[in-house]
Amino acid sequence: MFFASDNAGPAHPKVMEALVKANAGYAMGYGAEPIMDEVRASIREIFEAPDAAVYLVINGTSANSILLGTMSQPWQTIFCTDCAHIHEDECNAPEFYTGAKLTLVPTVDGKMTTDGLRAKILAEQNRGVHGPQRGPLSLTQVTEKGTIYALDEIRALTSVAREYGLKTHLDGARFANALVALDCSPAEMTWKAGVDTVSFGGTKNGAMGVEACVIFDPDLAWEFELRRKRGGHLLSKHRYLSAQMQAYLEDGLWLDMARAANARCAQLAAGLAAHNVARMLYQPQANIIFFEMPRAEHKRMLDAGAVYYVISGDPQVGDPDEPLIGRLVTDWSASEDAVNGFLSHLRG
Amino acid sequence: MFFASDNAGPAHPKVMEALVKANAGYAMGYGAEPIMDEVRASIREIFEAPDAAVYLVINGTSANSILLGTMSQPWQTIFCTDCAHIHEDECNAPEFYTGAKLTLVPTVDGKMTTDGLRAKILAEQNRGVHGPQRGPLSLTQVTEKGTIYALDEIRALTSVAREYGLKTHLDGARFANALVALDCSPAEMTWKAGVDTVSFGGTKNGAMGVEACVIFDPDLAWEFELRRKRGGHLLSKHRYLSAQMQAYLEDGLWLDMARAANARCAQLAAGLAAHNVARMLYQPQANIIFFEMPRAEHKRMLDAGAVYYVISGDPQVGDPDEPLIGRLVTDWSASEDAVNGFLSHLRG
Amino acid sequence: MFFASDNAGPAHPKVMEALVKANAGYAMGYGAEPIMDEVRASIREIFEAPDAAVYLVINGTSANSILLGTMSQPWQTIFCTDCAHIHEDECNAPEFYTGAKLTLVPTVDGKMTTDGLRAKILAEQNRGVHGPQRGPLSLTQVTEKGTIYALDEIRALTSVAREYGLKTHLDGARFANALVALDCSPAEMTWKAGVDTVSFGGTKNGAMGVEACVIFDPDLAWEFELRRKRGGHLLSKHRYLSAQMQAYLEDGLWLDMARAANARCAQLAAGLAAHNVARMLYQPQANIIFFEMPRAEHKRMLDAGAVYYVISGDPQVGDPDEPLIGRLVTDWSASEDAVNGFLSHLRG
Amino acid sequence: MFFASDNAGPAHPKVMEALVKANAGYAMGYGAEPIMDEVRASIREIFEAPDAAVYLVINGTSANSILLGTMSQPWQTIFCTDCAHIHEDECNAPEFYTGAKLTLVPTVDGKMTTDGLRAKILAEQNRGVHGPQRGPLSLTQVTEKGTIYALDEIRALTSVAREYGLKTHLDGARFANALVALDCSPAEMTWKAGVDTVSFGGTKNGAMGVEACVIFDPDLAWEFELRRKRGGHLLSKHRYLSAQMQAYLEDGLWLDMARAANARCAQLAAGLAAHNVARMLYQPQANIIFFEMPRAEHKRMLDAGAVYYVISGDPQVGDPDEPLIGRLVTDWSASEDAVNGFLSHLRG
Repeated sequence: MFFASDNAGPAHPKVMEALVKANAGYAMGYGAEPIMDEVRASIREIFEAPDAAVYLVINGTSANSILLGTMSQPWQTIFCTDCAHIHEDECNAPEFYTGAKLTLVPTVDGKMTTDGLRAKILAEQNRGVHGPQRGPLSLTQVTEKGTIYALDEIRALTSVAREYGLKTHLDGARFANALVALDCSPAEMTWKAGVDTVSFGGTKNGAMGVEACVIFDPDLAWEFELRRKRGGHLLSKHRYLSAQMQAYLEDGLWLDMARAANARCAQLAAGLAAHNVARMLYQPQANIIFFEMPRAEHKRMLDAGAVYYVISGDPQVGDPDEPLIGRLVTDWSASEDAVNGFLSHLRG
Repeated sequence: MFFASDNAGPAHPKVMEALVKANAGYAMGYGAEPIMDEVRASIREIFEAPDAAVYLVINGTSANSILLGTMSQPWQTIFCTDCAHIHEDECNAPEFYTGAKLTLVPTVDGKMTTDGLRAKILAEQNRGVHGPQRGPLSLTQVTEKGTIYALDEIRALTSVAREYGLKTHLDGARFANALVALDCSPAEMTWKAGVDTVSFGGTKNGAMGVEACVIFDPDLAWEFELRRKRGGHLLSKHRYLSAQMQAYLEDGLWLDMARAANARCAQLAAGLAAHNVARMLYQPQANIIFFEMPRAEHKRMLDAGAVYYVISGDPQVGDPDEPLIGRLVTDWSASEDAVNGFLSHLRG
Repeated sequence: MFFASDNAGPAHPKVMEALVKANAGYAMGYGAEPIMDEVRASIREIFEAPDAAVYLVINGTSANSILLGTMSQPWQTIFCTDCAHIHEDECNAPEFYTGAKLTLVPTVDGKMTTDGLRAKILAEQNRGVHGPQRGPLSLTQVTEKGTIYALDEIRALTSVAREYGLKTHLDGARFANALVALDCSPAEMTWKAGVDTVSFGGTKNGAMGVEACVIFDPDLAWEFELRRKRGGHLLSKHRYLSAQMQAYLEDGLWLDMARAANARCAQLAAGLAAHNVARMLYQPQANIIFFEMPRAEHKRMLDAGAVYYVISGDPQVGDPDEPLIGRLVTDWSASEDAVNGFLSHLRG
Repeated sequence: MFFASDNAGPAHPKVMEALVKANAGYAMGYGAEPIMDEVRASIREIFEAPDAAVYLVINGTSANSILLGTMSQPWQTIFCTDCAHIHEDECNAPEFYTGAKLTLVPTVDGKMTTDGLRAKILAEQNRGVHGPQRGPLSLTQVTEKGTIYALDEIRALTSVAREYGLKTHLDGARFANALVALDCSPAEMTWKAGVDTVSFGGTKNGAMGVEACVIFDPDLAWEFELRRKRGGHLLSKHRYLSAQMQAYLEDGLWLDMARAANARCAQLAAGLAAHNVARMLYQPQANIIFFEMPRAEHKRMLDAGAVYYVISGDPQVGDPDEPLIGRLVTDWSASEDAVNGFLSHLRG
């Protein structure tokens, strides 16, 4: 009954096998190993982007920060939601790597709207050299609230950005979970919808620790490489990144894992919806659920062995009737047993 | 006959086994996993430093940069050698993480001298607010030239730094290779010799990609954690770092691997010394050899399948008699066969 | 009828006389000139702060940025209003000098409330190393909307900050205008109310270009000096800064000029209040008025020679009845004639 | 007998008159004032560069740092001499504004040589993404040692830079002193000799505090403006910068002042050359002299009222026969009496 985070589960055994397999003999490092050539080719094929620059880094914070650094200038402001990971959970890494500031666009169900975005873009006008200059847009898919932008929503948002000459970054820490939910192609969710760069997550979806940075404009490639190195994010024994990504992509493993995580989440959501006390805050579309429930119910679940975050108060101390918000996240390895166990406890 | 780099070899099978073993079920991340507690305890014991703060990162550039960031201020200058990795091979990462500049101390056989250090420290005086302020000393052990500071040399250099109130960082990317060469304890080579923080390398010595940052003054711990996170260097699935380090340290594996690498290097050095044309530039003390040999000889070796860097010119094109400098590096996995093969080709 | 900005008027003649007088013979520079000793003593006396560190810089952006840099860390967030000059009008200079981000506290009449501040401070909790850490509070007095924090409002806000261990900076670009409006002492408006550092403005109030940075904790002095120099803000011929400040402070010139500016503003406000179409957005308390008026009325005023900013639309093009927001700012040199002329045109 | 520095003398009376004259009524700020149009036109004419972008800042550190920031990238290294002001006297401001590092080219008589430059440029090759990338060249004219690059020396150095695709910045804090010494045109000393940007000094040569930044490629203009603002170096009451520069340039005042300073220096040099104990370290070509003399002689001069820096030891304490290095700098206001007084004391 572990639903605390999708970065707390194990890597898929095939990922580990690939690591072990890659661990043979000498290999040139820093991305010059042959496996990386295969990974690059795979990602270009998956994204239908034969010219895309493709790089690997260890985690989402570095992927986001280095990509945004490559896309922006230190006198700009980056448009993102008020609950974006780059704003709330990266301890100023995006500011460190870009020098820029972040302008927070308000959200509905974890998503920004075109009106909200446009209003913030317009607010950064007319100050000439005095105000921050408009920088790129950064979208998050799956959002931090577990919701998903529809393709036409992405297109509409990137169109607003483009009206003002701004490029778009996609924080796809849960890219696969969104993709299988939308049942679309990677190209449709990215460059065909106006996205310029992607943090293509692996870590939260069964890898050990790897994210691909996909840049559709190859002119930015060399600058990305320099920024990655300057940030200390270029690995010497790079084959252990590329081997992970190779296994992750092979035979659609990444999609299978995302489907499994989403399916377990859907089961949990169905159980919560049927519950007479719990209330979901957003319609879960991928592998995350936010729900409100009295403290006493949270306490009962946690005491029964469920593991998840109660984020709006201490579940052990206080008025038993006070509603508190909990978050459930499923990963590829969440078992049906765990879900059934959770739901059976929930029903009391 | 691969002697190009010690970051191109495989990880030790025990490291991979530990990774696979750690890959079971859920684990809290970000260093909160139980294995990290063991690693912290092991390193404190190995260093005889029960209060030391211990952190893991993915590579040497980030270890050096975050440690130096924690030790310095952006208006300071860091004293290091003119061939230091932080100067030559990290694409301004130390400057990025510190804001400081580097003052280059001249070297003899890859090592700075107390006189050279003192002269550079003194040169940064008397300018008040106008000049850079004196920041920490950073030493490299094993040096970039394959030589090793004797314990009394380290003590003498850190004493000079301390005279001026400066702390000392040790870039120990090849810490183990130096340790077994000196046959001393980690404490003797670090805090007992006046060193304040250590980049304790694993990657070049049989790990997949992990370095420990050891900080003897625990008051700096929280700042280090914030700097690591802000640099994007805190891993969510941190257990795959700690599992590597655990296996690396267990039963002295790290020392065994360093001894093996050094032994292979000694064999190569003996063969080169006996050779009538090649000439070693420095007395190899660990696992690196720089040697000069006519282009034609280099060409012959490379054509025979030896893999190493010729760093002062193109070995394939030019005057066959021109002496060119080559670099040989042995790692834990270098085989006696490879060494014997190299030497037999060398003798022609 | 020039009411566009208080940084567009001339310096007071006494300031220019002081400059000319200071321009005699050689003087040690960088703040070592004798006039600076007098300025330091004057400001310490005015602020009843005998130990305060006092420095001069050329403008408000540098004063704010260097002070905030001295008070914060690059992994922190600085709490300020959503209309603060440091947020809107300094092109990321505060982010450049601090490395930190800004958290925007919502405003009522240009002022943050204790509830608003506390909510934002609390929102930055519970993320441990992942989220930005809480940094200093920055208040602006006079606010960007022309309103003024009462002394008990300042005390209440700094008390909230102190509860969480946070220090407070006061952006006093219009310090004098606020002071004479509140009829209190500099000490009462600053350290007695919990303020730790002050950007003490001169430029907008009759100086040529000088602001004092007042730091009540002298332990921060040396770091401020290094940050000022590193930002390129230490002047060699510093006497021309100190001479300005000396004349500014002498015989209460600064207070006289602020009183004159505020009085002209009050006249304008009275005229606007009596007008049957214009509507003031905030109760003007110092030397700034925001007012709404139909486009046609703005056009009429501008065509008649009034100079001020219409900030919410083009006054020359569009629906004549659409209400547009204008901003009037009076400086020390605004004449009664100019005010009367404006008001007589306003009445039509 | 004040020869401590050329930034310690007064501004020329005509500069002060211009300031007073500019201090009338309202003027748009931030460089939009009419005087700035005249200054821009004058500088373009003087430099025979009708398209050059021209900006004013308060001092040399900011001029150098913002120009270099506009010309470089944070992963680059800037080539300058080991005694450059940007290296020794700006407390890491160039690093702060650029993110880059400085590579120190050795000097002969304060000047780098083409061989020295080329060797340093070549040393930054072949490391790919690992090493710092080659950035711009920064030359200083007059050098910190009081010597001057001949036009063909500048051309040769910028040619070496251009061979490697690198641009050249000229730190012209003493531009006028060099120009009159070389008796050439500003164009000949800059863009005709391959220089791309110039810090055109006024402060050390009779202004109160103003330097022009001249950028021959106008495509860099907007970035410069943003960098200047972000550094806090855009003045609101900018007319007081432009008025200084206007007076400085009018009727060749700047050249007259430089000629006067150089002439006084030449007198001093002649006296020193005739002296039987003092020895000049470099042939003075502008307004700076470095000379060696026994401590007792320095002491005698200082006790007699001469004011200058003894930079290699305490002139009051120590072996009276020990040779110590002194520095003499003449400014436009140095009187013949002062020079004659100095020389008469020197002769004893």
